[in-house]
Amino acid sequence: MTGALCPGSFDPVTTGHIDIFERAAAAFDEVVVTVMVNKSKKGMFSVDERIEMLEVATDHLPNVRIGSWYGLLVDYARQEGFSAIVKGLRSANDFDYELQMAQMNRTLTGVDTLFLPANPAHSFLSSSLIKEVATFGGDVTGMLPPFVQERLLARIAERAAD
Amino acid sequence: MTGALCPGSFDPVTTGHIDIFERAAAAFDEVVVTVMVNKSKKGMFSVDERIEMLEVATDHLPNVRIGSWYGLLVDYARQEGFSAIVKGLRSANDFDYELQMAQMNRTLTGVDTLFLPANPAHSFLSSSLIKEVATFGGDVTGMLPPFVQERLLARIAERAAD
Amino acid sequence: MTGALCPGSFDPVTTGHIDIFERAAAAFDEVVVTVMVNKSKKGMFSVDERIEMLEVATDHLPNVRIGSWYGLLVDYARQEGFSAIVKGLRSANDFDYELQMAQMNRTLTGVDTLFLPANPAHSFLSSSLIKEVATFGGDVTGMLPPFVQERLLARIAERAAD
Amino acid sequence: MTGALCPGSFDPVTTGHIDIFERAAAAFDEVVVTVMVNKSKKGMFSVDERIEMLEVATDHLPNVRIGSWYGLLVDYARQEGFSAIVKGLRSANDFDYELQMAQMNRTLTGVDTLFLPANPAHSFLSSSLIKEVATFGGDVTGMLPPFVQERLLARIAERAAD
Amino acid sequence: MTGALCPGSFDPVTTGHIDIFERAAAAFDEVVVTVMVNKSKKGMFSVDERIEMLEVATDHLPNVRIGSWYGLLVDYARQEGFSAIVKGLRSANDFDYELQMAQMNRTLTGVDTLFLPANPAHSFLSSSLIKEVATFGGDVTGMLPPFVQERLLARIAERAAD
Amino acid sequence: MTGALCPGSFDPVTTGHIDIFERAAAAFDEVVVTVMVNKSKKGMFSVDERIEMLEVATDHLPNVRIGSWYGLLVDYARQEGFSAIVKGLRSANDFDYELQMAQMNRTLTGVDTLFLPANPAHSFLSSSLIKEVATFGGDVTGMLPPFVQERLLARIAERAAD
Repeated sequence: MTGALCPGSFDPVTTGHIDIFERAAAAFDEVVVTVMVNKSKKGMFSVDERIEMLEVATDHLPNVRIGSWYGLLVDYARQEGFSAIVKGLRSANDFDYELQMAQMNRTLTGVDTLFLPANPAHSFLSSSLIKEVATFGGDVTGMLPPFVQERLLARIAERAAD
Repeated sequence: MTGALCPGSFDPVTTGHIDIFERAAAAFDEVVVTVMVNKSKKGMFSVDERIEMLEVATDHLPNVRIGSWYGLLVDYARQEGFSAIVKGLRSANDFDYELQMAQMNRTLTGVDTLFLPANPAHSFLSSSLIKEVATFGGDVTGMLPPFVQERLLARIAERAAD
Repeated sequence: MTGALCPGSFDPVTTGHIDIFERAAAAFDEVVVTVMVNKSKKGMFSVDERIEMLEVATDHLPNVRIGSWYGLLVDYARQEGFSAIVKGLRSANDFDYELQMAQMNRTLTGVDTLFLPANPAHSFLSSSLIKEVATFGGDVTGMLPPFVQERLLARIAERAAD
Repeated sequence: MTGALCPGSFDPVTTGHIDIFERAAAAFDEVVVTVMVNKSKKGMFSVDERIEMLEVATDHLPNVRIGSWYGLLVDYARQEGFSAIVKGLRSANDFDYELQMAQMNRTLTGVDTLFLPANPAHSFLSSSLIKEVATFGGDVTGMLPPFVQERLLARIAERAAD
Repeated sequence: MTGALCPGSFDPVTTGHIDIFERAAAAFDEVVVTVMVNKSKKGMFSVDERIEMLEVATDHLPNVRIGSWYGLLVDYARQEGFSAIVKGLRSANDFDYELQMAQMNRTLTGVDTLFLPANPAHSFLSSSLIKEVATFGGDVTGMLPPFVQERLLARIAERAAD
Repeated sequence: MTGALCPGSFDPVTTGHIDIFERAAAAFDEVVVTVMVNKSKKGMFSVDERIEMLEVATDHLPNVRIGSWYGLLVDYARQEGFSAIVKGLRSANDFDYELQMAQMNRTLTGVDTLFLPANPAHSFLSSSLIKEVATFGGDVTGMLPPFVQERLLARIAERAAD
């Protein structure tokens, strides 16, 4: 049996992320989507909110679970007994950065990283760009699951009202 | 059960290729290393010779088989019932090219490509550069399995004698 | 009034090319799609055939004309009285090569090059990859205008019968 | 008639920016240089100061106007009735980032982005690097219009005196 | 006689840095490793601590000295009478950024930059990634000289105790 | 004393090459420009002609000599007693390729490679592009030393007359 971790901040989950989860779920027996906790960066959504949205968004994928982790990803992989990390790759720029992380992770514990090239239709999507566009009133329909879009717009409205 | 194809020309197999096979064999239940036949390019070794060397070089990997294919790789994947291709990636340059192939393959039949970043110690190895170095008398020890190195040097000597 | 050249070999024209023509036609008053003649490389289609297919494929774009040229593109631009070249750009790799050509062209005659990023849905399309896939029986529907696909399949069948 | 936006922060305008404005002005009937307002980042010059310097620096270009915008650039393009954005491109790195923005902008409203490769003589110029060099007393002559250089040096002297 | 500067923040020095120093020391008669002072960024170690660690770490290289500088690197080069800067280069991404700096430095004073490609075994090492890994308890043995590793772990323990 | 090899095909030498020679001559005590012989590729000029043009073009550089080599560059470096190779680097694309060669050369014999970023004004120059432009009658003044330009135009005229 083979398993893989899909790490990210997922603040919030996008259509591009879900495409990666679906493809990872087709290639591996078991996939754990892992919200990496970054204590020095306040997100749009709390870790619990992100996990909850990920759970709904991956409900159609029986071999996908959601987790979260504060620390080295490779320690989480070891705890789960997994030897693979799966990451989406959008551009050659991404590659140079991700390569460095992948080589470090392999050196630390032997956990390997496999890259899935982004679906071309999603290659320009990132959580941060979508949040910026939505904040300025741009229409982000199709870039997020509909229920996530709704929650993002609500959150932006709340913040503007503060 | 999950399976993956590792395509290439493998003329001949290098230490870098074997590293990819071992990592693919760790991530998937079954791996088929596939020699892609290119009728318009005469190699240093025949397809049969390449297969034979691959068989010896992967003898320690019980879940790896060797195959060969003339045509579209995705047709071979379909025939094997596999939905994944695994390729090594050495540089950002490689990525832009391989991305094009991966997107084409996914469009054609839904077969997906996962990339494994080259082990840094092997990132400069390619069959063609090794053949060039060996032809000029450079020492390629460690860049090929020892028995492949021996066969390569013998072949170069034969050709020089022609 | 502003005009631009869209150069290429177009052997044959793809859906990705047509996307670039449409966008160039929206940005400039007049566009001349220019088949660059390469005497040292035999194509799948003759220059006349390529021009004919381009004419049909751009029939819906009233401000687009088709031309051909043997020599320096900048001389053709000067003859047309145009000061701009428009090219599609698919990847960072493309950029480094095209940048060199653009800087040479600007140095030679002051003709400038503007780049249009490929539509993500077409970023993996190239005439040569489509020809290779079609030769091996892959389904290239949607990658070419339907009448071009028909002519490509007919040409491949002819050649196989030789 | 064709028009294009040239967006940026222009804090302050450099010789490299002016090169892009001149080339955009040659390719399009009308160009609006647009200062993008970023409320979370305090610049060296206020938006009004930047606009004023841009006005002087583009005085020789009759078909160039200066504007400013807070929000999505595509909304400004729509308001002006423009369908094109023109951006300078300095490196393959730039390309991967700008491609993401361009694809987002096209998805949002159909406004297209054309890239002009930086003049090689200016490819290393950026407002932030010039400000850093000038702050440490480096000679930035030729990297900025002379009157902008004078204002930059005066501003740096003011700040040092604080 | 030829001399070169090796600039960096070295917070702290890594095995990858030392590899570059050794290679620079082999190519030039005299090398000055230069800690660039950045007043707006608090490091893990003070500039004095970094210098002290660099001195120990380069003790085996008789033609290497350690210095520090606040300001433009090219001014330091001029003061030392050196006409070359040597920098390690890890990836194509690094190249685009470093190229900009190198061209600026050459324009300012004629001081030239030579790049040494990172040893593949060290290409994923950076001070900041090592600090992050060590902070989360990852084993960074071999990525730093042993005495530097000891000091880093001690510093991390101190900070955690605060 | 430090020495470096500057390898290339130099068919013929360009203004960009000479810029690299001058900078290498400033950084090292002794430089040997080395014409690499490629028996499978017929050039525009013979190896002897290229050497002769290089000698004239580097006449103002007293610490530069011209050589030629058939085989592995590292063997020539060893014969000269040099431990460094110097190469110009024009783009991030170049880097990924040259990095592979540099790592191979270092593995083979410990000979190291230092890269000099191309002068921006020359970054688009290559012997092959200049030959192509000149063949079609483009004005290549300034891209080659004047006497080399003369010989190139004469050679092109001879060939056209054949």
